[in-house]
Amino acid sequence: MKVMSVIDIQKLIKIIGLKTFLTKLIIFLESDFTCWGTFHKSVRHATYFAQGAIELMPCANDQFYAFKYVNRYPGNTTQGKLSVISIGQLSDAATGYPLLLSEMTLLTALRTAATGALAAKYLAREEARSLAIIGTGAQAEFQVIAFNSLFPLQQIRYFDIDPAAMAKFSRNLAPYAFELIPCANIRETIHNTDIVITATATNRRMILFELQDIAAGTHIHAMGGDCPGKTELSRALLEAAKIVVEFIPQTLKEGEVQQCDASDIYAELWELVTKRKRGRENATEITMFDSVGFALEDFAALRLVYELALEHQLGSEIALLPEPDDPKDLFSVLIPFLNQN
Amino acid sequence: MKVMSVIDIQKLIKIIGLKTFLTKLIIFLESDFTCWGTFHKSVRHATYFAQGAIELMPCANDQFYAFKYVNRYPGNTTQGKLSVISIGQLSDAATGYPLLLSEMTLLTALRTAATGALAAKYLAREEARSLAIIGTGAQAEFQVIAFNSLFPLQQIRYFDIDPAAMAKFSRNLAPYAFELIPCANIRETIHNTDIVITATATNRRMILFELQDIAAGTHIHAMGGDCPGKTELSRALLEAAKIVVEFIPQTLKEGEVQQCDASDIYAELWELVTKRKRGRENATEITMFDSVGFALEDFAALRLVYELALEHQLGSEIALLPEPDDPKDLFSVLIPFLNQN
Repeated sequence: MKVMSVIDIQKLIKIIGLKTFLTKLIIFLESDFTCWGTFHKSVRHATYFAQGAIELMPCANDQFYAFKYVNRYPGNTTQGKLSVISIGQLSDAATGYPLLLSEMTLLTALRTAATGALAAKYLAREEARSLAIIGTGAQAEFQVIAFNSLFPLQQIRYFDIDPAAMAKFSRNLAPYAFELIPCANIRETIHNTDIVITATATNRRMILFELQDIAAGTHIHAMGGDCPGKTELSRALLEAAKIVVEFIPQTLKEGEVQQCDASDIYAELWELVTKRKRGRENATEITMFDSVGFALEDFAALRLVYELALEHQLGSEIALLPEPDDPKDLFSVLIPFLNQN
Repeated sequence: MKVMSVIDIQKLIKIIGLKTFLTKLIIFLESDFTCWGTFHKSVRHATYFAQGAIELMPCANDQFYAFKYVNRYPGNTTQGKLSVISIGQLSDAATGYPLLLSEMTLLTALRTAATGALAAKYLAREEARSLAIIGTGAQAEFQVIAFNSLFPLQQIRYFDIDPAAMAKFSRNLAPYAFELIPCANIRETIHNTDIVITATATNRRMILFELQDIAAGTHIHAMGGDCPGKTELSRALLEAAKIVVEFIPQTLKEGEVQQCDASDIYAELWELVTKRKRGRENATEITMFDSVGFALEDFAALRLVYELALEHQLGSEIALLPEPDDPKDLFSVLIPFLNQN
């Protein structure tokens, strides 16, 4: 089976460019969300520990089976470790044999951003040119660049309680043609912007801003409310917004809408993509994509990486599967190494 | 993170010997079953396809998180592929960081056999010296060798509907000191043997033998009833036997006991290991370990392999996790590879 390490993903981005990768990823996501009904879907499997959670996220259609291993340990950064790391696998659904094992920490940041951008295609105003981001942690630059691939952004306003995180965000995006506006607080950040992304890492219920703080017609990508007990927005704001989610049973457990019930949700994303429901209907409504991450997105990302790895001959082979001459003779794989003791 | 490929597992077996590995594995299993109450346990996550099923099997305690990816595609052998292949991962529960990725096809065969032997320690007669096995496919030799590590077996009777599978079983075990007795049918195979292992691959409900076909005091390791719709034994035989399982909610879905209800089950294996319940109580009772495989067993196997890999400096390192200098600066991992296009 093929392995795509971090180094292989770096090579891939160097070869095709980040913008092209994100553009392709949005196309793969849109294509897979269009076939929503053909997928085996389930709520992710989570194990909760004192320090964090580990999740398994499977998703399949008749051609491929994908799953992702991902941790969420907000305290990891105090030890110099990432708070979200991930590994993904893509298998052939006809045999169950794995085809690809891939680093997925970078891919998760990329697919989360690409999914947010895809939702914004249906929910943000077409003429959106300004974006505000609250929380400039590990995901922030990916978000901006993915949104920029669909909306030619001019102004990026940003805020984080950690000045160092703001400085790194500014440094990383300096080469791009954005007007970068560091803000002193949340209200200043989101004032009169077209798209607001909430991406804090705080693992509890809080309220970053209220309805009166945002302009009419704002689209909110609520990314940071993504596990039970963690929300960033108020119930009043949720009631005022047109809310779209990925997969209702999962988002009700993990998203901002854990404060609501299913009747407060307008649509699942696939319903917009397939045109079953309209996205934004006028220039003034408040829209919200309450994103928690769904396994279909990893499926699309792994499918794309597998295709690109084959096309550009990237990745290495790893012998994780025995290959006995006779499949009923698994024991033969050990025989040359036995001494009958 | 460390990777143990098939080649690394072969090296490990060559260094320490298969018998020592199995003996250690039984000790690790017994130790983990003893701490049953401290584990995060769940029914495995299965996705069903026309040709088979793919499962994710997670299990954790406060120290480690383990999961296994495993396929069950009975038709794979007709294409020269294995019907069960598997990959496992062990993570540090304190950070969610993976420690080990391992081939697990061989390890699954080994841990399944070791768990069967552990159950037989409590359920078979101590003086058991003869073993019958129905179905001499990929798992068969592992079973015999693991049971032999606790019971000094003299006579092995065996049968398979595929003569080639019988021939390979006989060939593979020829170097051992067993009396190997090929049989013409099931009844002849199980006649007057102390331990009977059912290990067919047929994926439907059938009845291999009835109560009157086995001797008083027989212990049955019912290994082959291991998914919904697949059973190998009759309801009447189940009613007559003292049945022990791994994890009741899972075995009721997948084991022989999918024909019964929870009240027909005598105990979970951990209850025997911790001495909460007695195993075999006399020389004549029929006992049965209705084994479907439980994630705790993979946990124990991965924990052992990780320990042995460190001890014997086996395995290789693979860069599946990004290592930015600043954990909040994931984007920096891509920066040297960007051209702002």
